[in-house]
Amino acid sequence: MVTASWNRRHVLSLADFTPAEYDTVLHTAASFREVLSRRTKKVPALQGQVVTNMFFESSTRTRSSFELAAKRLSADILNFAPGTSSLSKGETILDTAKTYLAMGTDMMVIRHREAGVPQAIAQEMDRLHTNVSVLNAGDGLHEHPSQALLDLFTLCTLLDADQPRLSLLSGKKIAIVGDILHSRVARSNIWSLTASGAEVHLAGPPTLLPKLFADFVAPPLPPHPADHVFAAPQPIQSIPRSLFIHWSLPPALENADMVMTLRLQKERMTNHLLPSLREYHQQFGITHDRLRHCQPHVKVLHPGPVNRGVEISSELMDDPNFSLISQQVTSGVAVRMALLYLMGGGKS
Amino acid sequence: MVTASWNRRHVLSLADFTPAEYDTVLHTAASFREVLSRRTKKVPALQGQVVTNMFFESSTRTRSSFELAAKRLSADILNFAPGTSSLSKGETILDTAKTYLAMGTDMMVIRHREAGVPQAIAQEMDRLHTNVSVLNAGDGLHEHPSQALLDLFTLCTLLDADQPRLSLLSGKKIAIVGDILHSRVARSNIWSLTASGAEVHLAGPPTLLPKLFADFVAPPLPPHPADHVFAAPQPIQSIPRSLFIHWSLPPALENADMVMTLRLQKERMTNHLLPSLREYHQQFGITHDRLRHCQPHVKVLHPGPVNRGVEISSELMDDPNFSLISQQVTSGVAVRMALLYLMGGGKS
Amino acid sequence: MVTASWNRRHVLSLADFTPAEYDTVLHTAASFREVLSRRTKKVPALQGQVVTNMFFESSTRTRSSFELAAKRLSADILNFAPGTSSLSKGETILDTAKTYLAMGTDMMVIRHREAGVPQAIAQEMDRLHTNVSVLNAGDGLHEHPSQALLDLFTLCTLLDADQPRLSLLSGKKIAIVGDILHSRVARSNIWSLTASGAEVHLAGPPTLLPKLFADFVAPPLPPHPADHVFAAPQPIQSIPRSLFIHWSLPPALENADMVMTLRLQKERMTNHLLPSLREYHQQFGITHDRLRHCQPHVKVLHPGPVNRGVEISSELMDDPNFSLISQQVTSGVAVRMALLYLMGGGKS
Repeated sequence: MVTASWNRRHVLSLADFTPAEYDTVLHTAASFREVLSRRTKKVPALQGQVVTNMFFESSTRTRSSFELAAKRLSADILNFAPGTSSLSKGETILDTAKTYLAMGTDMMVIRHREAGVPQAIAQEMDRLHTNVSVLNAGDGLHEHPSQALLDLFTLCTLLDADQPRLSLLSGKKIAIVGDILHSRVARSNIWSLTASGAEVHLAGPPTLLPKLFADFVAPPLPPHPADHVFAAPQPIQSIPRSLFIHWSLPPALENADMVMTLRLQKERMTNHLLPSLREYHQQFGITHDRLRHCQPHVKVLHPGPVNRGVEISSELMDDPNFSLISQQVTSGVAVRMALLYLMGGGKS
Repeated sequence: MVTASWNRRHVLSLADFTPAEYDTVLHTAASFREVLSRRTKKVPALQGQVVTNMFFESSTRTRSSFELAAKRLSADILNFAPGTSSLSKGETILDTAKTYLAMGTDMMVIRHREAGVPQAIAQEMDRLHTNVSVLNAGDGLHEHPSQALLDLFTLCTLLDADQPRLSLLSGKKIAIVGDILHSRVARSNIWSLTASGAEVHLAGPPTLLPKLFADFVAPPLPPHPADHVFAAPQPIQSIPRSLFIHWSLPPALENADMVMTLRLQKERMTNHLLPSLREYHQQFGITHDRLRHCQPHVKVLHPGPVNRGVEISSELMDDPNFSLISQQVTSGVAVRMALLYLMGGGKS
Repeated sequence: MVTASWNRRHVLSLADFTPAEYDTVLHTAASFREVLSRRTKKVPALQGQVVTNMFFESSTRTRSSFELAAKRLSADILNFAPGTSSLSKGETILDTAKTYLAMGTDMMVIRHREAGVPQAIAQEMDRLHTNVSVLNAGDGLHEHPSQALLDLFTLCTLLDADQPRLSLLSGKKIAIVGDILHSRVARSNIWSLTASGAEVHLAGPPTLLPKLFADFVAPPLPPHPADHVFAAPQPIQSIPRSLFIHWSLPPALENADMVMTLRLQKERMTNHLLPSLREYHQQFGITHDRLRHCQPHVKVLHPGPVNRGVEISSELMDDPNFSLISQQVTSGVAVRMALLYLMGGGKS
């Protein structure tokens, strides 16, 4: 398996991903998608290696996807359960990570409600001269790179199933709709989609859109425990061109090739950022009717879990002519196998 | 391994099980019981296949039994943890199932406190033209087929260890004692035991017995979320003959060959369906003394977990001359291996 | 692999461990440490055997360590989750253990907040003439033998990496500092360290030190459920020589070769056994400065999780010239592999 363009120990953010790296992930994931179509869906690539899922913020969907990806690479998995953990006994997050390091963990998949935690752990692993790889599975409002990569893989394989590559999206119009401001999925997708040469159109209620782009892609870090300081996310190298912001849906959908809807957190209502779910759906919910002004081949994505009838109508979600939601989940396993494989040294 | 009589993708209910299907399960489980007596208790039958345990209602005992069965068939297991799931984020149950489908699940083992959920998921899997198998691990007050099959296996191997078969129970008198009305275990057992030609005698307090048999085996479905409609359980094809209902224990125990006690849910008391545990034990608790009027070879079963001194006396539970409770647990692993193996395609 | 000196089915306490048994554990763990340094860190020693982690008291660190040890020996693991268990349904602990026995468990790793529970389960397993092995992973204030053995392994490999053996500690001065009274780690360490011929010096606030040594190593059992009686821990055979108790830190540290700090439970403050964390740290916290009167080669251990700045200063904890905390965690996997291997029959 060719993994020429891969020198990255950690996957923390897509801000500095190169086109060659995107293509390596897409190419490797395509190979693993083939493995998944066999009856025996396992390869021995990571046999004897230990992947620790450290989900400080609970998640069944993403954790299961990583767990299955790791199992299909024949790795051993440790699941760190926050509810029953030493954290409630006062241990710091870095000390928890170092404990799993000392047990022999080779890769850590980390989700945390605070931005910067995976970065901080990765820096500590490097400072200690370890070979441990860290994969950000969602940190606060910052990034969720494996989600954006599976979205990218889903879109690219739609256009060329055998040779998915970044350049296929060049010139495409892609709308991202909803609560952009609070979405780590949107942040990661903006990096990958603009890198591809697509035109990215953000649409949402003004209260849920970023005011300044620079603030948006690198949000201020939240307060943290006094005993350790998390590193700030990567500085922004350049503000992507071909990024547009709309306060209403029609200009974003006009001639769009793909529409990405985002999950709406219901707690936005209690914070008075939204009037009602019904009104949100009327203005920003995606329906068959709303797609009339898109390209005829338009496809719709959603990272899940979906609030049916809010971000997207139930009928559209279940319409295989438009919805790519199932494919996204399937892509997730292949892309996460690719990431673990590449980070794990990747000699097939 | 002969699996001639098996064309069933899902195991949801025993209402329409044929004698040939019962015998196939018993025969296959007997083969696996032999595997379990070896030092290395694994076979590669389901290597690379994914079994997802979706226990929306928590259970350690049944989940562990399925998990061990799947591991001994070399399958990969995903455990869906309800506490940390997308359900709390508003996702529908069918969408959760479709997510695990898209990840590559081959078999789903489902427990839910509402009757009909495993059926609804199975129908959706069929509607989508998938090959996914669904196994009902207990749905509301409806059915718990793997429990009834392990009870059947326990009883039949008692009578012929090498060739357990349904017809061995023909003409036996079997008492089922306790809270029949709220027991999915009793419902499933009634189908299998009456199919065998046994005489089944139900005994319990009037408040915990069904009034009309037809209502009992197909209970009205509880209210459900507005966004999806669960299918009603299978219509009843025929009311079994040789089924008797008693409001007191002695006529049920008289000359009985086997006695099945049911777990008493303590919340029945708060609902004023029962006066007190002590009074219940005096009237329906099984003790050495109470067994005097049964056949001398009588055996006692309980699905567990047991409230010692309520459904059964502590002394009787621990008496290996009468109690089959341990054997039931051991049978559980063999029977669940058989079910997963048969549903998984069953070529040895 | 030589396992000459091992006839022990259960590991419940170190009170009656022989020097030959200590050396067998140390020797076997050293072999497995070598396995852990390979890229593929697995051996097939326990293939097909089932290890059940029964952590009635929650723990991520110790459970993960046992889980990884079992996986690296190729065993199948069942994790018993107390929160979702039959215990909340009224089942007794012994009945829960017998259920896992009947499922086919070969080894049980048990943690419980009550002293004596692992012993009670081991006695029941023996009474039933089973081959099941029980390993005490921490019972109340009583013992935590695998922790003391990993501490021993860490200290002995420091002195001779290739041939760790008990006699290496003979004549060494070892301080154990902190809440001795409530520490099962201290109780187990006292047995192993005094057996080695080391001088053991206990230091802590008077309220957290034992008054009578005999009471201390065999604490009175707490009240227990009426339906089963836990066996009292092993009677004390002899009060170890070379054990010293100090109400202040300096005499314990004077010329010490090794210092073991213990975790301070914060709830001791609410029980008025301690004035404040700050005052505790001033009197008993270990710092670089405090180590000046120890031997120049002194090393510091802590069983984790650490309250930084309470039992030990943050700087000292992170100083690899003194701190063995990471090595302890790594040793833990090797020592637990050794214990499971030896208890599991141990033919390599």
